[in-house]
Amino acid sequence: MRQAVTLRQVAAHAGVSRQTVSNVLNAPHRVEEITRVKVQAAIEALGYQPNRTARSLATRQAGLIGYCLARRPGRSLFMDPFLHALTEAIEGTGRRMLVFTAPDGEQGIATYADLIAQRAVDAFILSDTVPDDPRHSWLASRGVPFASFGRTWPEQGEQPGPWVDVDGAGACAELVRRLHSAGHDQIAFVGWCDLLAMGAGKDRQRGWQDECARLGLLEQAAYADSDSMDGAASAAAQLLDGSTPPTAIVAASDLLAVGVVGELRRRKLRPGHDVWVTGFDDSVLASSVEGGLTSVSQPTAEITSALVKRLDAEQDPAGVLLAGQIVSRCSAPVDL
Amino acid sequence: MRQAVTLRQVAAHAGVSRQTVSNVLNAPHRVEEITRVKVQAAIEALGYQPNRTARSLATRQAGLIGYCLARRPGRSLFMDPFLHALTEAIEGTGRRMLVFTAPDGEQGIATYADLIAQRAVDAFILSDTVPDDPRHSWLASRGVPFASFGRTWPEQGEQPGPWVDVDGAGACAELVRRLHSAGHDQIAFVGWCDLLAMGAGKDRQRGWQDECARLGLLEQAAYADSDSMDGAASAAAQLLDGSTPPTAIVAASDLLAVGVVGELRRRKLRPGHDVWVTGFDDSVLASSVEGGLTSVSQPTAEITSALVKRLDAEQDPAGVLLAGQIVSRCSAPVDL
Repeated sequence: MRQAVTLRQVAAHAGVSRQTVSNVLNAPHRVEEITRVKVQAAIEALGYQPNRTARSLATRQAGLIGYCLARRPGRSLFMDPFLHALTEAIEGTGRRMLVFTAPDGEQGIATYADLIAQRAVDAFILSDTVPDDPRHSWLASRGVPFASFGRTWPEQGEQPGPWVDVDGAGACAELVRRLHSAGHDQIAFVGWCDLLAMGAGKDRQRGWQDECARLGLLEQAAYADSDSMDGAASAAAQLLDGSTPPTAIVAASDLLAVGVVGELRRRKLRPGHDVWVTGFDDSVLASSVEGGLTSVSQPTAEITSALVKRLDAEQDPAGVLLAGQIVSRCSAPVDL
Repeated sequence: MRQAVTLRQVAAHAGVSRQTVSNVLNAPHRVEEITRVKVQAAIEALGYQPNRTARSLATRQAGLIGYCLARRPGRSLFMDPFLHALTEAIEGTGRRMLVFTAPDGEQGIATYADLIAQRAVDAFILSDTVPDDPRHSWLASRGVPFASFGRTWPEQGEQPGPWVDVDGAGACAELVRRLHSAGHDQIAFVGWCDLLAMGAGKDRQRGWQDECARLGLLEQAAYADSDSMDGAASAAAQLLDGSTPPTAIVAASDLLAVGVVGELRRRKLRPGHDVWVTGFDDSVLASSVEGGLTSVSQPTAEITSALVKRLDAEQDPAGVLLAGQIVSRCSAPVDL
């Protein structure tokens, strides 16, 4: 590697002390304008790059934001583009992303504690939240800055700390309204069983359920025993074999919806004709299904930019609920 | 946050100098066993956690490995689990993962240069390699440690630096052999058009082509103009409308294969009966297709552990070619 330019060389070139150069880098408000300009010129002339490690020791900041990678194969289609957008948003603020793995639930707290104790990160972005998520209350109680993609749906009281979320309940209610307007009155729901405890799945289910109740529709739901198409196909079979088979099925994710579509095809039923089907995430899967899958798109750029804003300053309000966008395709032509 | 235990407190508790504690942490071989045990006991008794930033300044290591996130929606299904496994493997060596974004090609080099100049990372893991990838030769020429998932297929000479890859050519040749054994002699290929320059796509195509040549089979290929199911469906349509329609189609990815399956269904052709179809990656998509998609599984755990090994030491050989595993499902029952 080329020999790095040192802070000492910059100081000599500008004719100032090393402390002054350090101030220009870390506390520019302490330095007179004329001095600041002189030092900046020297930095540019020499191509000086501050050593991040030394600098972070001086500012007591790691310059890194921590983000835990969850292992949920079915969610890859949404979480992978989300991570890319989040990393770009963090980089836009001059910081970088540290990703790590941790066990789910209480057991994972030790990893967060390690990262803080080692001063490896300054703050966390959380996702894959669950009801009463132990991470949120733990971080909040210790004054560690964080912003959460997803709510923690506390049994009582308020969300601990700032959050950004997509209104899954609102989007599913809107789907039910549109399906009902199109003539459906047997609108079933297919969700997750083992992940039903997960906030997002429950939120989507609640939106479907409340709107069915409001419209006086029968509430029929079935749950996949794993986050897979096979699980969703079994759940759909259960509904279709019932005494009042649905004419429309709202699924909690694209993966589940594609499983439902598969079960319809096995029965020679045509999605979007015999039975209408909707998904959630507007992932690459939604365009993979023959004719396309009607789905709910999450506004990734808005989500990540709101998360980064909430990380940096006390915000009023602490929470932001963004609307999902219904993308209508052949599996359920619900365009208005 | 709780007041952190200091190195000074550990030294006092163990009755040794601060330098000795520092040596135990950073150069344990310099310390006598009896002293090391005493200091370790003090560290545990007080719950001391070394400050990573201060420690990295002492050892001149960031303790971080850099990895660039590529934006390729269709690849999410493989790259998301890969990133999780890679992060775990890096963590297994006591270091952490820094992820970043960068433009493709030559333009991206500036980002790698910044990360090195800032000493933000000690080394890089590369993926999404292209022929004569500019990152590899740039890093190699500057002596920056890296390991590459994927080869750079240089026009001449050797791979610059250590690499790990999956033998895509070998797996596709094996698929052709098995399809031929099952009675097929019109075995076509569906690949990427704009990404054909990409090493992995070309490698898979080469395996199919060489084996067809060896068996004296007609070589018919069509290319999707985007990394999408729609693109693959058009490519499949082109093949099926030709004068010698294929009875089997080897696709360069699961995403492409699902597009091919969609086109077959539109024509009332049954995958695995009328036309056999294979994919690549054994992603969640492979189990999504009705009856399942025959695909090639990449050994993620082996890949990531081999990458980390290559990062740490000069290895002989510098490159490791791992075999893909054919997973047979209904779209092409090629089990032997």
